[in-house]
Amino acid sequence: MSQRTARSADSLRPISITADFLPHADGSALICFGNTKVICTASIDENVPPFLRGKGQGWVTAEYGMLPASTASRMKREAAAGKQSGRTQEIQRLIGRSLRAVVDMEKLGERQILIDCDVIQADGGTRTASITGAFVALQMAVDKLFSDGLISENPIREAVAAVSVGVVGGEALLDLDYPEDSGCDSDVNIVMTASGKIIEIQGTAEGAPFSVEELGKLIALGQKGIAELVQHQQAALSARLPSVR
Amino acid sequence: MSQRTARSADSLRPISITADFLPHADGSALICFGNTKVICTASIDENVPPFLRGKGQGWVTAEYGMLPASTASRMKREAAAGKQSGRTQEIQRLIGRSLRAVVDMEKLGERQILIDCDVIQADGGTRTASITGAFVALQMAVDKLFSDGLISENPIREAVAAVSVGVVGGEALLDLDYPEDSGCDSDVNIVMTASGKIIEIQGTAEGAPFSVEELGKLIALGQKGIAELVQHQQAALSARLPSVR
Amino acid sequence: MSQRTARSADSLRPISITADFLPHADGSALICFGNTKVICTASIDENVPPFLRGKGQGWVTAEYGMLPASTASRMKREAAAGKQSGRTQEIQRLIGRSLRAVVDMEKLGERQILIDCDVIQADGGTRTASITGAFVALQMAVDKLFSDGLISENPIREAVAAVSVGVVGGEALLDLDYPEDSGCDSDVNIVMTASGKIIEIQGTAEGAPFSVEELGKLIALGQKGIAELVQHQQAALSARLPSVR
Amino acid sequence: MSQRTARSADSLRPISITADFLPHADGSALICFGNTKVICTASIDENVPPFLRGKGQGWVTAEYGMLPASTASRMKREAAAGKQSGRTQEIQRLIGRSLRAVVDMEKLGERQILIDCDVIQADGGTRTASITGAFVALQMAVDKLFSDGLISENPIREAVAAVSVGVVGGEALLDLDYPEDSGCDSDVNIVMTASGKIIEIQGTAEGAPFSVEELGKLIALGQKGIAELVQHQQAALSARLPSVR
Amino acid sequence: MSQRTARSADSLRPISITADFLPHADGSALICFGNTKVICTASIDENVPPFLRGKGQGWVTAEYGMLPASTASRMKREAAAGKQSGRTQEIQRLIGRSLRAVVDMEKLGERQILIDCDVIQADGGTRTASITGAFVALQMAVDKLFSDGLISENPIREAVAAVSVGVVGGEALLDLDYPEDSGCDSDVNIVMTASGKIIEIQGTAEGAPFSVEELGKLIALGQKGIAELVQHQQAALSARLPSVR
Amino acid sequence: MSQRTARSADSLRPISITADFLPHADGSALICFGNTKVICTASIDENVPPFLRGKGQGWVTAEYGMLPASTASRMKREAAAGKQSGRTQEIQRLIGRSLRAVVDMEKLGERQILIDCDVIQADGGTRTASITGAFVALQMAVDKLFSDGLISENPIREAVAAVSVGVVGGEALLDLDYPEDSGCDSDVNIVMTASGKIIEIQGTAEGAPFSVEELGKLIALGQKGIAELVQHQQAALSARLPSVR
Repeated sequence: MSQRTARSADSLRPISITADFLPHADGSALICFGNTKVICTASIDENVPPFLRGKGQGWVTAEYGMLPASTASRMKREAAAGKQSGRTQEIQRLIGRSLRAVVDMEKLGERQILIDCDVIQADGGTRTASITGAFVALQMAVDKLFSDGLISENPIREAVAAVSVGVVGGEALLDLDYPEDSGCDSDVNIVMTASGKIIEIQGTAEGAPFSVEELGKLIALGQKGIAELVQHQQAALSARLPSVR
Repeated sequence: MSQRTARSADSLRPISITADFLPHADGSALICFGNTKVICTASIDENVPPFLRGKGQGWVTAEYGMLPASTASRMKREAAAGKQSGRTQEIQRLIGRSLRAVVDMEKLGERQILIDCDVIQADGGTRTASITGAFVALQMAVDKLFSDGLISENPIREAVAAVSVGVVGGEALLDLDYPEDSGCDSDVNIVMTASGKIIEIQGTAEGAPFSVEELGKLIALGQKGIAELVQHQQAALSARLPSVR
Repeated sequence: MSQRTARSADSLRPISITADFLPHADGSALICFGNTKVICTASIDENVPPFLRGKGQGWVTAEYGMLPASTASRMKREAAAGKQSGRTQEIQRLIGRSLRAVVDMEKLGERQILIDCDVIQADGGTRTASITGAFVALQMAVDKLFSDGLISENPIREAVAAVSVGVVGGEALLDLDYPEDSGCDSDVNIVMTASGKIIEIQGTAEGAPFSVEELGKLIALGQKGIAELVQHQQAALSARLPSVR
Repeated sequence: MSQRTARSADSLRPISITADFLPHADGSALICFGNTKVICTASIDENVPPFLRGKGQGWVTAEYGMLPASTASRMKREAAAGKQSGRTQEIQRLIGRSLRAVVDMEKLGERQILIDCDVIQADGGTRTASITGAFVALQMAVDKLFSDGLISENPIREAVAAVSVGVVGGEALLDLDYPEDSGCDSDVNIVMTASGKIIEIQGTAEGAPFSVEELGKLIALGQKGIAELVQHQQAALSARLPSVR
Repeated sequence: MSQRTARSADSLRPISITADFLPHADGSALICFGNTKVICTASIDENVPPFLRGKGQGWVTAEYGMLPASTASRMKREAAAGKQSGRTQEIQRLIGRSLRAVVDMEKLGERQILIDCDVIQADGGTRTASITGAFVALQMAVDKLFSDGLISENPIREAVAAVSVGVVGGEALLDLDYPEDSGCDSDVNIVMTASGKIIEIQGTAEGAPFSVEELGKLIALGQKGIAELVQHQQAALSARLPSVR
Repeated sequence: MSQRTARSADSLRPISITADFLPHADGSALICFGNTKVICTASIDENVPPFLRGKGQGWVTAEYGMLPASTASRMKREAAAGKQSGRTQEIQRLIGRSLRAVVDMEKLGERQILIDCDVIQADGGTRTASITGAFVALQMAVDKLFSDGLISENPIREAVAAVSVGVVGGEALLDLDYPEDSGCDSDVNIVMTASGKIIEIQGTAEGAPFSVEELGKLIALGQKGIAELVQHQQAALSARLPSVR
């Protein structure tokens, strides 16, 4: 029998994506994976980092943060602490890499898109929700470049989304919430394209090391979740039409 | 004729306060002064700062932040920059002082309430919106202490709210938005109690210095705005009933 | 009967201003408000901050510090702590704004005057003494620009000075010293021009909130003190003549 | 035909592990994966981090650094820059997690083993060499706890080692050096136990996203490399006998 | 013929020491070596650093700073820069070592004396003036411990003072000012006791390396200067009597 | 009778210098003064610091660090602590000054040589070993500039080496190891040229102040040690021939 009662082992939590949540930004979305809620924004910057100047290609980078009260027990504000934790840096590097993998930097042109993912409520899976929501914000910023006449070819090759899978009490579960994540034996974050190719996979044995076979099953479960998330992304982007686009 | 077209010189922007916006926090509100939107949360901490230990009294303190994409042109994330700006520190000190002025620290007991004000969209008046929304979150946290049986007397003496007033093009205006604030001659932030007493007043001549008489007129205008904001606070707190209280 | 014994409620502490205290600086003054002693210097810098480059106008900015042993109980050195406190940043922003309000930036030309206010002994009112002394250092630096032939029109519109007023034990007092400031009900810092216009007003209810009427009385008291401080500034500047000018 | 000329696609670079390289440390090894050279040390600390105090269990944690001249073009010293980069923090978190996965914390007792991995020459694969060498230092520190009579049961469940695999020019290669890593399409770091179980897997599409099938082939290649690395570890540890153990 | 015109090669600059310059501190002195002016204070702290707790002995430590406008061209404020320079740390470590060398830490008792040396005008020799003035402040703080009945035996073994000597244009000069120091071939800072013993000697070849014989001559010159400085210290301390002691 | 048993009072510890220890660097050496082991590298940088740009002369600078496990009890990693200690900065400034004293900056041309000294095992004398080893790395980098045709005249005037001398238990000893250094009465670090001229001398009375005569004896002892160290340097550099030069 499943560990879960409210949803089946291979179900995502209720997903909602509100595109254009902050109209001042070039792209924005509020994404909810159950009680995990993240504001994702995209800002177009007509400069590129120094190492890319004059090379005719663009860049996508990301920053990640959590509101202090987003967690059950309030966490210290990183700006007050004076530095970003190792965890924060690891996650924002992951978001950036994941998005860059689906963008053709030459078609983007010599400009940068800065993604911000700010968690306002955390209940597990903040990095996967961030990547999934960030893609929506990124797509909106790219659409704006089109409508402003700044680019003429689509630099986005395909959608990208992310989900976690893990083994909890011997059972493979999709999209772990915080209690599940805290008690899991193994935890795998998968970033995949709409066509089912792997962009990033990060698997960690929190409890017992796992076999190659178990990894295979988890990946298959993730693939199912990714396909559903990509549909949610498309729906959210379509819902803006025609007023926004 | 007024500088303003969409509202009269002595009108607030459309105000909305959504109490309990983030149910995981001990108190929370999303407050909107027009396009300025701030998430305010209150977290109860059963410890007090070192200078108060063993003295039988509590403390209220605040932190303030802005999401990088909250402004028209994305600002640098303070956590990444490694420090909070002088402006940030000035504002969070103001929020803390304003709330402490209406709290009886002995009735609060030896515990601390930590307020977080995070601006998700900025269009002028973020500090006044923060104070006004923070009071709602604070009241909710105090209500929780009551319902948890941790306090027996109400430590909150009366409500507190804040608004800006200023002279723009020779005209006294209530509740300046960003374009008005940028072009004003003088700018006064007023923090007042529900009973019309001043807790904090900060007036700055951005352009020409102003006379004592002009200050008097601005304060009267502010007083009118504060009275309306206090009604919005009460309405938002009442709207939670009876499920939350 | 007054709380005070050594001076009347509407008297300043003994004021002394020694212009040209540090002859190596472009402008300097040692200012004493009773036992509060501040070294103020002005340094001319022929560069402006990046946001003003090429705009043909100047800038005035300020930094503030306290010697560790300036307070009754030695405070931590900020350079050793690795950052300036929120209080320090708030004060130095106030000093800078106050001086900029009386300077015509176009007449100053594309250069910067950097003000440093370093408290060597603190007994209340360090920010008001800093502003009052900083104006003397600023005037000296401007005089130097004249005598060096770098400017031809006077960029200073009029003098600026600052004083605190407050209610202590129900009585309105001018120029609070540290014991008075620690025990006051309300504390208002007023920055005014020689002609009696307000540049900045910061009032805080340390104890009970105060009424609009009380504020009016405090402002009137401050106006009296400012007028006297402006005379001290002029006397100190005149005393330099003719050797320095 | 293979991209490689000096070794076959499924070969490790020449591996050397010198145990007890720094006799002052509780455990130490100089590990070389070809031209990549890392000094790994283990230091026993009879204290545990605050969150573990009084719980009767131990901890293993790691720090990572690179000598400035370890790279072809000298990199900035992190101690001089004042902070560790995101990459550094990500790697040291990975090393710590990998070692903790094979240690029974209760058998270790309430003490901490601090691992330091300092790269003295970098040519790709510094994180995998660090993990592989760190295990040798960790084993030596545990042996010392035994010989000092501080523990009586072996807390190490089995050996752990790490290797990178990747697709370069369409070919799956084992143990990428720096030129291979820079030009690869995909790069997977695998941390495995001696018995072939996965502790951590981190796969990234540097160029084109990869399929689930390709991932399977890469994992198999990594498994072969890990088995060889475990033999090198055992040989290095055995070579100390009988003088050290 | 001498490089100097205003004073002979073996003369100190005009020395002045004003003891009790800041009456609020436990000990204080304004010391001038010509145009170099330093405020030195001593603060008694009834705590010792952690490594000395419970050992029944005291500690003396020092911090050093320069006002931004103390130098000909304004220097950056270290508190604003967020860290103390290597030079600052080197000097404050030197001051601390020099003072500790003449104090019997057991007689001082389990307490700490914190010395602050803040340069208000710099014209060469700030570290030697700091040490010489710091001794005066230290002696005053020790006198206060006596008069407060906190110690009964004199912990100060003898006076300590410091001076620089150097070779400029082939000539050995005593007490270099800034222009001399900038152009010297070699520069030796000597810290000596009243009885002529060396506490610290730091010699640096700024231009050409110097011979052992040259060093001998410079030390003799320094010894002459130290003897005179010790007399200035005693005179400044005596001048306080009987009101202060 | 001597305090020492394994070597005579005027003997160096066993010295070994391995030139070209890290072939990727422009110059490198592993130097051992007994159990003190330091990796020294030199990196050529075709830029100079801002204050030298366009002046046609070069620069030599140094950084110093210690591996955390280099000391008997593991020390905190400075990169993790977020700053370099005062001791670290003092030592790296000393290394830089010592090397610059033997280099003709005009002959070096407008480029910089960056020296890194990283202590992998510490047993006293890390700064003197660093200077002595750094010269070898510097010479190698200069040889590389010659062989690459970038300079045509030798910028190095003569060799430089460093050693410590001290009085322990009344006896003057050469090249103190850590236990000797911890218990010494006085400690003098001497940096000298091959021709016996002083570049830097730093003498500190750790216990009792010392006389000018005692200093003289210690310097003579140091001179003997320096002469031997210069021979070790030459031998190490010669051993590279002809393959490296």
